[in-house]
Amino acid sequence: MSKQILILPGDGIGPEIVAEAVKVLKLANDKFELDFELSFDDLGGAAIDRYGVPLADETLDRARAADAVLLGAVGGPKWDGIDPAIRPERGLLKIRSQLGLFGNLRPAILYPQLASASSLKPEVVAGLDILIVRELTGGIYFGQPRESKRLENGERMAYDTLPYSEREIRRIAKVGFDMARVRGSKLCSVDKANVLASSQLWRAVVEEVGKDYPDVELSHMYVDNAAMQLVRAPKQFDVIVTDNMFGDILSDEASMLTGSIGMLPSASLDSDNKGMYEPCHGSAPDIAGQGIANPLATILSVSMMLRYSFAQVAAADAIERAVSDVLDQGLRTGDIWSEGQTRVGTTQMGDAVVEAL
Amino acid sequence: MSKQILILPGDGIGPEIVAEAVKVLKLANDKFELDFELSFDDLGGAAIDRYGVPLADETLDRARAADAVLLGAVGGPKWDGIDPAIRPERGLLKIRSQLGLFGNLRPAILYPQLASASSLKPEVVAGLDILIVRELTGGIYFGQPRESKRLENGERMAYDTLPYSEREIRRIAKVGFDMARVRGSKLCSVDKANVLASSQLWRAVVEEVGKDYPDVELSHMYVDNAAMQLVRAPKQFDVIVTDNMFGDILSDEASMLTGSIGMLPSASLDSDNKGMYEPCHGSAPDIAGQGIANPLATILSVSMMLRYSFAQVAAADAIERAVSDVLDQGLRTGDIWSEGQTRVGTTQMGDAVVEAL
Ligand SMILES: CC(C)[C@H](C(=O)O)[C@@H](O)C(=O)O
Ligand SMILES: CC(C)[C@H](C(=O)O)[C@@H](O)C(=O)O
Repeated sequence: MSKQILILPGDGIGPEIVAEAVKVLKLANDKFELDFELSFDDLGGAAIDRYGVPLADETLDRARAADAVLLGAVGGPKWDGIDPAIRPERGLLKIRSQLGLFGNLRPAILYPQLASASSLKPEVVAGLDILIVRELTGGIYFGQPRESKRLENGERMAYDTLPYSEREIRRIAKVGFDMARVRGSKLCSVDKANVLASSQLWRAVVEEVGKDYPDVELSHMYVDNAAMQLVRAPKQFDVIVTDNMFGDILSDEASMLTGSIGMLPSASLDSDNKGMYEPCHGSAPDIAGQGIANPLATILSVSMMLRYSFAQVAAADAIERAVSDVLDQGLRTGDIWSEGQTRVGTTQMGDAVVEAL
Repeated sequence: MSKQILILPGDGIGPEIVAEAVKVLKLANDKFELDFELSFDDLGGAAIDRYGVPLADETLDRARAADAVLLGAVGGPKWDGIDPAIRPERGLLKIRSQLGLFGNLRPAILYPQLASASSLKPEVVAGLDILIVRELTGGIYFGQPRESKRLENGERMAYDTLPYSEREIRRIAKVGFDMARVRGSKLCSVDKANVLASSQLWRAVVEEVGKDYPDVELSHMYVDNAAMQLVRAPKQFDVIVTDNMFGDILSDEASMLTGSIGMLPSASLDSDNKGMYEPCHGSAPDIAGQGIANPLATILSVSMMLRYSFAQVAAADAIERAVSDVLDQGLRTGDIWSEGQTRVGTTQMGDAVVEAL
């Protein structure tokens, strides 16, 4: 039976970079006889323009029915003035939550060909390969109650709630341990257990789950210290597991250590490894429509999709090799370009990967 | 009338580094005829050992009566197993809250003499001088309700609350704008307004306060982006104002950009500029008692005290110059030592600053 893949190009540079990733996906489909069927829909600002909401019910139904989702990026100044309840980002949060995509994998890998792009000293980041496992459907992103109101004296106040249940912590901790097991066997759980009640439970449950993984070295770190250690000595980390908000912050920090966030894919998985795949970077409205965006993070997201949702390891490896090949050829989009390399646009880069594949 | 200064050496390396700062404070007192009276008490683990609680009522009374507080650092493995309700950190949080020290100033300055200590490329951090203004008595650190409980099905869950009122946001925003005004006239307010209700209020109130500061250039940034930008191009920032939790994370990240967190002081101020002053670094239990800790951050905290709580600009400047002098002499504690410099211990470093002053 053929596998259904839903493509959501989104906003800004989304359509441009997704177009290149789709070329690669189609070629992989033929070459490795994957029997994929692709369909397309809108999310974020594009969906607001078309459906009046950032995630239409019919789109959500299609996503549920699909075996995997490939997403570009959402958001842009066009929808900045809009009612917060239907901003583009709400569509992203809703699809994560409704599909139960609690396990967010965000690798931060330094490509040797791009080592000079980092703002850190070469010796600090050479060979960097960290995986951040972020809890994606719980915590303060979705906690109830949340409210904006007036106090009796007329003063405004607003609050959010940061809840975690044992079940939520347990399942993301397992993802962290499982990933550590197939990588460097080190898991660092990041929390703020010296201040937060939710973090105290987080730490206790991660400890319990760790009993089932005696082969994985577990450590705990406060989030402020983790933010420091990522700058000081990032190679001390193998896998980091953390909550939704801390994961948002630390994964962006970690990705920037590589200096080439245009290279980093991500996966968001449910408990059956059904997933949504997207680049780590945003919709970059400032360069949208110019044909200069880097499609490699989205192309590498296709590789992650093949690996995690379809266990097509050979095809996934081939795409990663093709990306490495084009870097070896010296091809660079503007964001990763440096003296002596060949500057190319979005389409040329996509074509080069197709060629290499 | 003489000014009362309460000294709380705390735990770990606290007593060692505070002893050096006290030498400097006493000399400044004589030299500049400041008429300070010093008294001593315990906070954190030391207070648990002496009073059974991390902040005794009598200590709090003394702190209230004092004109300024100088703190070393709190915490250590000795008290790790203790009931969370009376951990050393609770003493720190309680004194901040009870004294109303809502305005936390955390500079991240790169000393030219220590430029090589940073893990970032020299051109990225040369001349770095950022001030992080962190809200210190509100938000998720103190929000109620917070609870750890069992659901009906027996499953454990825990939650925290992140509340902010207009008044809390307004007063910290003012500190941010006031600081920007006497520095580079740029204020970046960091929040997560695309997700959190409290951040939406934060952003709105900061905008309103900004109307009174047309001379300060105000921008807003999401916290994940800020964590990235601090790594990518930290010199784009002048003053950053943000909430308690984001400030905890970002100020540690920013301080590590300098590579010498042993150099960074901090101030926590109430609405009358009464303040508590402490180094940015922690109690470093691993090196406590060895006489090798860097006392300069604590000595520079004395300088901040003179500047912010007592408007003794000449004395504050003199201490900063003395610190710069000892660095010029090539004296370094282990944490900031590099090839070709003279390695000294805590006492020698303190003595050298006294000498230079
Ligand atoms: C767009 C925003 C809501 C989102 C998040 O905070 O999760 C983004 O920053 C991300 O990390 O995917
Ligand atoms: C010790 C801890 C409670 C404290 C905090 O989180 O505020 C510390 O990290 C700090 O930044 O002063």
